[in-house]
Amino acid sequence: MIRAAVVGYGNIGKFAVQAVQAAPDLELVGVVRRKVEPQELPPELQGLAVVDDVTKLGQVDVALLCVPSRSVPQKARELVELGINTVDSFDIHGESLLSYKREIDAKAKERGAVAVIAAGWDPGTDSVVRALLELMAPRGITFTNFGPGMSMGHSVAAKAVQGVRAALSMTIPAGAGRHRRLVYVELEPGAELAEVEAAIKADPYFAQDETTVYPVESVKDLQDLGHGVLMERVGTSGQTANQRFRWEMRINNPALTAQVMVSAARASLKQQPGAYTLLEIPPIHCLPGDPGELIKRLV
Amino acid sequence: MIRAAVVGYGNIGKFAVQAVQAAPDLELVGVVRRKVEPQELPPELQGLAVVDDVTKLGQVDVALLCVPSRSVPQKARELVELGINTVDSFDIHGESLLSYKREIDAKAKERGAVAVIAAGWDPGTDSVVRALLELMAPRGITFTNFGPGMSMGHSVAAKAVQGVRAALSMTIPAGAGRHRRLVYVELEPGAELAEVEAAIKADPYFAQDETTVYPVESVKDLQDLGHGVLMERVGTSGQTANQRFRWEMRINNPALTAQVMVSAARASLKQQPGAYTLLEIPPIHCLPGDPGELIKRLV
Repeated sequence: MIRAAVVGYGNIGKFAVQAVQAAPDLELVGVVRRKVEPQELPPELQGLAVVDDVTKLGQVDVALLCVPSRSVPQKARELVELGINTVDSFDIHGESLLSYKREIDAKAKERGAVAVIAAGWDPGTDSVVRALLELMAPRGITFTNFGPGMSMGHSVAAKAVQGVRAALSMTIPAGAGRHRRLVYVELEPGAELAEVEAAIKADPYFAQDETTVYPVESVKDLQDLGHGVLMERVGTSGQTANQRFRWEMRINNPALTAQVMVSAARASLKQQPGAYTLLEIPPIHCLPGDPGELIKRLV
Repeated sequence: MIRAAVVGYGNIGKFAVQAVQAAPDLELVGVVRRKVEPQELPPELQGLAVVDDVTKLGQVDVALLCVPSRSVPQKARELVELGINTVDSFDIHGESLLSYKREIDAKAKERGAVAVIAAGWDPGTDSVVRALLELMAPRGITFTNFGPGMSMGHSVAAKAVQGVRAALSMTIPAGAGRHRRLVYVELEPGAELAEVEAAIKADPYFAQDETTVYPVESVKDLQDLGHGVLMERVGTSGQTANQRFRWEMRINNPALTAQVMVSAARASLKQQPGAYTLLEIPPIHCLPGDPGELIKRLV
């Protein structure tokens, strides 16, 4: 059995505990979080090892980092330093991802560990679909349309703005890969909506999209974990045009993120030391069971 | 540049030549087929190296095997024996695939070559999608619905039946992963329809499906290369049900097959000696260009 720890116990952490428990080849060693006193534990954590430091859990093969993306690189560094494999769903695309990857790759090679990064559904499995689309039709345009649904990364980013007590960011597809962001905020007493709105719109998470900020009494009443994506490509295979592809999901967002992380945790045990995105891992490594049987059933 | 040869010049071979010519990092060394006299060459092959033996082409890094599936294992053996990488779109799922893989894997390791097998769209990229669906929602059922469209493998199998001059097999989706096969045949003079029909229905390509055989004057008039697939899964991520996924393509069939083979040919140069399905290859290896740029753009 693969000994797995869940680090962080927010939205994704809760589903990660469930996904580890449901996996036939993983064993939940424990949960790492700040609050560890019995009276601070939600019912589902009663009876589990809940600690404030991963070293208190004994041998850990892989840690699922269920902390906000902006805390992921620091947390990954700490774990990899201890020789523990890590999996995260770091969701800041582009240059941030590359520089995080380079840094953790060097550290992982030094410590003989594996870090699987950006292993949620987007980035993550959607990234693999984008690669498939390009290898099938190298010329063409892929549109990734998100939502409607609550974006966890965007909600966390909005909540981090000064004067915001709670936030919920809805992603509304506007077609052809463009999106609108509807950000619902509970303001701290004395906070100025105009300032909060400006700070949210200036954040890199929101700067590219049409963003509207709405003050509300209770963000909680608006919460639903449903989300989805529609990816479309029309492209050319060889010299033949009009090749048409669609990939669509309607899913519970943190449940899918956590499941992909568990599948990536399994794969981490099969890679050489270093850092990997899902693009760099053979898909079969993410599945439990005998490779011959998997090939017979899936190929 | 990767020096690629196309072996076989039927439906897929024609599109493979185009796809190699369109690839930025592959060079078409030549085409291997039986008919090599200038007056036997179609216009698009004029000016290319067309030979009856791959050894006449000089250095070949990878050969795209565009021959019927049933001839693929023998042809792969010959090429791998020469130390040449091979790619095929062998499309007989299940045990046949596994035993072919085992045999060519041993031979490839012995000769320091790589064979990428079953690298079309199904098996091939659809197999990768099936793996993704399971790693995202391990419990559930995936339905693969093909068509409507002409199946090349089934058409070739029907044409191989004694008494059949030409054949076209249409795949009609019947829902929930079931299919009907409509087989249009031109009979040889004196052939008995009833015997032909019985032989087709007994063939492993057709035995599992409801199959109807229609005699026609001209199969050619019915030909269109359009095909497609709709894959659906409803499954459970961790302990969360009702996760919904759809993968749909509407494509020119041999054009897509050939393009996937070209992408797999590129990947073959990045693997250790042995045999691989697309499930066992990191998707990024199938794409041209700098890995860092690909990660930045696709992840």
